[in-house]
Amino acid sequence: MTTKPALLVTMAGWDETPWAESFAELLPDHRIVTTQDKIDPAQVHYAATWKHAPGSLKAYPNLKVIFSLGAGVDHVFLDKDLPPVPVVRVVDNDLTTRMSEWVVLHVLMHHRQQRMYDWQQHERLWDEDRFQPAARDIRVGVMGLGVLGEDAAKKLKVIGYDVAGWSRTRKHLDGIQSFAGNEEFDAFLARTDILVALMPLTPETKGILNRDLFTKLSHDGYFGAPILLNAGRGGLQNEADIVACLDDATLLAVTLDVFETEPLPQDSPLWHHARVTITPHNAAISDPEAVATYIANQIEAFEDGEPLQNVVDPKRQY
Amino acid sequence: MTTKPALLVTMAGWDETPWAESFAELLPDHRIVTTQDKIDPAQVHYAATWKHAPGSLKAYPNLKVIFSLGAGVDHVFLDKDLPPVPVVRVVDNDLTTRMSEWVVLHVLMHHRQQRMYDWQQHERLWDEDRFQPAARDIRVGVMGLGVLGEDAAKKLKVIGYDVAGWSRTRKHLDGIQSFAGNEEFDAFLARTDILVALMPLTPETKGILNRDLFTKLSHDGYFGAPILLNAGRGGLQNEADIVACLDDATLLAVTLDVFETEPLPQDSPLWHHARVTITPHNAAISDPEAVATYIANQIEAFEDGEPLQNVVDPKRQY
Repeated sequence: MTTKPALLVTMAGWDETPWAESFAELLPDHRIVTTQDKIDPAQVHYAATWKHAPGSLKAYPNLKVIFSLGAGVDHVFLDKDLPPVPVVRVVDNDLTTRMSEWVVLHVLMHHRQQRMYDWQQHERLWDEDRFQPAARDIRVGVMGLGVLGEDAAKKLKVIGYDVAGWSRTRKHLDGIQSFAGNEEFDAFLARTDILVALMPLTPETKGILNRDLFTKLSHDGYFGAPILLNAGRGGLQNEADIVACLDDATLLAVTLDVFETEPLPQDSPLWHHARVTITPHNAAISDPEAVATYIANQIEAFEDGEPLQNVVDPKRQY
Repeated sequence: MTTKPALLVTMAGWDETPWAESFAELLPDHRIVTTQDKIDPAQVHYAATWKHAPGSLKAYPNLKVIFSLGAGVDHVFLDKDLPPVPVVRVVDNDLTTRMSEWVVLHVLMHHRQQRMYDWQQHERLWDEDRFQPAARDIRVGVMGLGVLGEDAAKKLKVIGYDVAGWSRTRKHLDGIQSFAGNEEFDAFLARTDILVALMPLTPETKGILNRDLFTKLSHDGYFGAPILLNAGRGGLQNEADIVACLDDATLLAVTLDVFETEPLPQDSPLWHHARVTITPHNAAISDPEAVATYIANQIEAFEDGEPLQNVVDPKRQY
């Protein structure tokens, strides 16, 4: 009898059992274990991880692939003792379309001044301010043109916005202006009225959404000051700078789905700031079934000798 | 010297002057008059109207075309003494895209439960409720598939919704289920979680958004009760029924841009109802320059012997 290769589900502080049960159904020829199960470490060929304990994966001498259970892989690279095997991230159409729902909703809420109309409704005001700019007069900039950023940019374009994107390497998307690399970053910011942050968290992007960047955004658009949306990672943003820049009109308004510390601490000034909209890191929640199926399919293809899809570049970390 | 044909701008209760000035620039070979100007009635060949005084247009024996200054023409047909000449409505891409901005925004606000997250933010709650249905699980029904309804339906489809439309005659739109005529109306309502009313106000549609219709909408969708959006005309809706149906859960929530009486009266219970969102009839405000250009171009083509575009069927009144 040959030993079945095992898949380890490892999620520090989360319940691993429902994931293990999903994988057991999808991969009946594999052994599926959690960090609570006893197993000969040599049997573990695959790890499916969400914030695994740093250093824990080096215990598996035959580990072949690490799968992130979410779209982001920053949690994987927090482990400085990561075995030198491929890291695969999830690319899931369900997650992508959900993220674009959030992006389009919150760009529209700002552009169509919904918070002002909420206030007018509360005050029973009809004629106070009825004019709206057209979407084509609002310049949206998508920072990060990966799978998520590209889908969001295309949908914003369909609504009618003047859309540009920035990415490390130039992309070619119909009707969307593409800025690339460090040398075009300031030009991208200067033409952006609403910034949508959808880039990965890496050592290079940590804290990049700070006063220096906000100052470079457009201050000559329809609303006079720029608007920030972040549904990427909380680690991208400097929350003290966001509050200070809202208060001195460097920023007009922000919508945040992610935070430096989650859940957002009770004493954060963001909760009750008049020009802050908060969603509780649910812009795009992965469908566990879709993610498990994606990983199971990759394992089967890998064992058939096919190349892995969506392998992360360990240097770029995305 | 031949007498130039004249265009009359006639808007009871509105300032006609800016419109007359726009037309004077666009049609330098025509005489442009308002209802304040003295003119031989026989000179008036064209009327550009927004809520003209009923009966007033029959004074012009050589009137050839009536142009509505807005997308709707219900205000024209309020005149029971209308001369039997073609009535032309505005079809303006700017107005269409603005209407779709409003529709997509408010469908997303309901689907993504933004009012609940506003409340959670106010209460500093993070984990209360984070689950979101996907757009594909929400059945949006667009009632009226004219130029506005078609554009809105297509954009809702791009976001990912399960979209159907209802119209008098069947339409063929990619990926959008088409219901047609009275015999398919109840089936359309029964599969609709979010109803978007974009049909014209005619004797047949007056008051159609009432308890009878709300009862026929889906009550087995993700949210358990249906949601209504009306950006068509206030005359389509019965506001007493809307309030009563919100209160007995026949309706979950509504977003209204138009009202039986506008401005919405100060004592309307809609203003402060917890599940009502109000915008002040500005879902799609016509760009006066675009509308004037559209009408001027039609007049020039008409005088060159070309057929008029977007002539209203006086029997259907749209």
